[in-house]
Amino acid sequence: MPQFSLQEFSLVYNAFSFTFAAMFAAFIFLVLSRNNIAPQYRNAITMSSLVVAIAAYHYFRIFESWQSAFALNVVDGGAASYIASGAPFNDAYRYIDWLLTVPLLVAELIAVMALAPGKKGGMTFRLALAAVLMIILGYPGEVATDTGTRALWGFISTLPFIYIVYELFVGLGSAVNAETGQAKVLVRNIRLLLLATWGFYPIVYLLPIVFGNTGISPSLIIAVQVGYCIADVAAKAGYGLMIYSIARVKSVQEGYDPAAKLAVASGD
Amino acid sequence: MPQFSLQEFSLVYNAFSFTFAAMFAAFIFLVLSRNNIAPQYRNAITMSSLVVAIAAYHYFRIFESWQSAFALNVVDGGAASYIASGAPFNDAYRYIDWLLTVPLLVAELIAVMALAPGKKGGMTFRLALAAVLMIILGYPGEVATDTGTRALWGFISTLPFIYIVYELFVGLGSAVNAETGQAKVLVRNIRLLLLATWGFYPIVYLLPIVFGNTGISPSLIIAVQVGYCIADVAAKAGYGLMIYSIARVKSVQEGYDPAAKLAVASGD
Repeated sequence: MPQFSLQEFSLVYNAFSFTFAAMFAAFIFLVLSRNNIAPQYRNAITMSSLVVAIAAYHYFRIFESWQSAFALNVVDGGAASYIASGAPFNDAYRYIDWLLTVPLLVAELIAVMALAPGKKGGMTFRLALAAVLMIILGYPGEVATDTGTRALWGFISTLPFIYIVYELFVGLGSAVNAETGQAKVLVRNIRLLLLATWGFYPIVYLLPIVFGNTGISPSLIIAVQVGYCIADVAAKAGYGLMIYSIARVKSVQEGYDPAAKLAVASGD
Repeated sequence: MPQFSLQEFSLVYNAFSFTFAAMFAAFIFLVLSRNNIAPQYRNAITMSSLVVAIAAYHYFRIFESWQSAFALNVVDGGAASYIASGAPFNDAYRYIDWLLTVPLLVAELIAVMALAPGKKGGMTFRLALAAVLMIILGYPGEVATDTGTRALWGFISTLPFIYIVYELFVGLGSAVNAETGQAKVLVRNIRLLLLATWGFYPIVYLLPIVFGNTGISPSLIIAVQVGYCIADVAAKAGYGLMIYSIARVKSVQEGYDPAAKLAVASGD
């Protein structure tokens, strides 16, 4: 790790803290708002809340890891800075996080969509399996020290990614068309959100190939870490709120009224 | 950071601890009391609980940052004191907190008011956007080292603030008049609470312009930090409890009775 000014160090530190707070707040929102959703879509909300809870946990750890990777260096008469403490900054938290959350992200999308019940299970299984393969196959390249190995595993892990995109845009085409009104607009938008946010990760993956490991400057590290935060907030908390919106719109379309239900039926 | 006596250091430290405890307690209250509120107003309570949860988290961090920014200095035969450790006191937590909570504060007010459903979305979006702009545009001035830059950004960020105040007092005028009985009194009061508490922040913002950065004494730092705590507890926990009161009064006015509901149903 290179040397950072106090401002540079704090920018990354505050981005991690912001991301933790956003994930944690999204978790509270999803848990408290479950009752607004018709029972048939609550699994999607449950999975969304798991995703942001897991992400909040990992950002808490990443935040701590960032702190421990640096030591404050106070120089008499000079500007204080943060230098490498020797402890590694643990990037593996991200992979562990993705291994748990990415299958859930595809599963929660299937769970709110108008698929025949018999089709949901198979589709969820295939997409979740592809998501797990995508993460696992990317990892050997992430920890590789040479560019060739990184490029090879990066290429292999792109194959399940392409399969996921294919299923979302072609395989689910008729299910998307079966949605009506605002739900249809939202389902289309969430697929685009997924594609746009997930597209950020391969770009970061390619950086050491483009710049070489030694060419990665402090400002590039800052851009990557802050970029990951923005992509993660959009891909998990933002995505979770869109899943909530879809489930809410469909609950209303299908005549679900939490107030009416509460008057005659059991609590939640 | 200047030198503080043990008493001065502890005063700020205890103010942060008090604020954390107040926010956390408000969070528990709001979550536990949601069922007293009619379903159509529960979103407002959910948002209130998010605000105090996010604030509790940030006060926990601010508390830790205050501790790490100082080192105990014990002198033989002299009074012990706290001197700067070199680690920065991270004021940016406040901006991150505001970025997440201020849009929610305006949104929760709209959510409890008697606005036509079609108008709520647009009004919430405009006010939340203005709130975000207000925070973002204030930040470059906060971190600026020269007075002119601070004054410029401070002025620019005042514009969305004026827009928010205008919408609350003029744009929402007819909605306030549509309220009846105690709800009308409470809605009028909460607007004044919002104006009074939010008014504290620009005053603090102006201090380095009035006194100059070098003229900021330990006692002024203490006044600002303790002042922020009081303003935040009033603007978030106090405001959240007023939102709860409005929602409770309106729930009763509209015939919602949680006891009746629970009597016929199995409850939650």
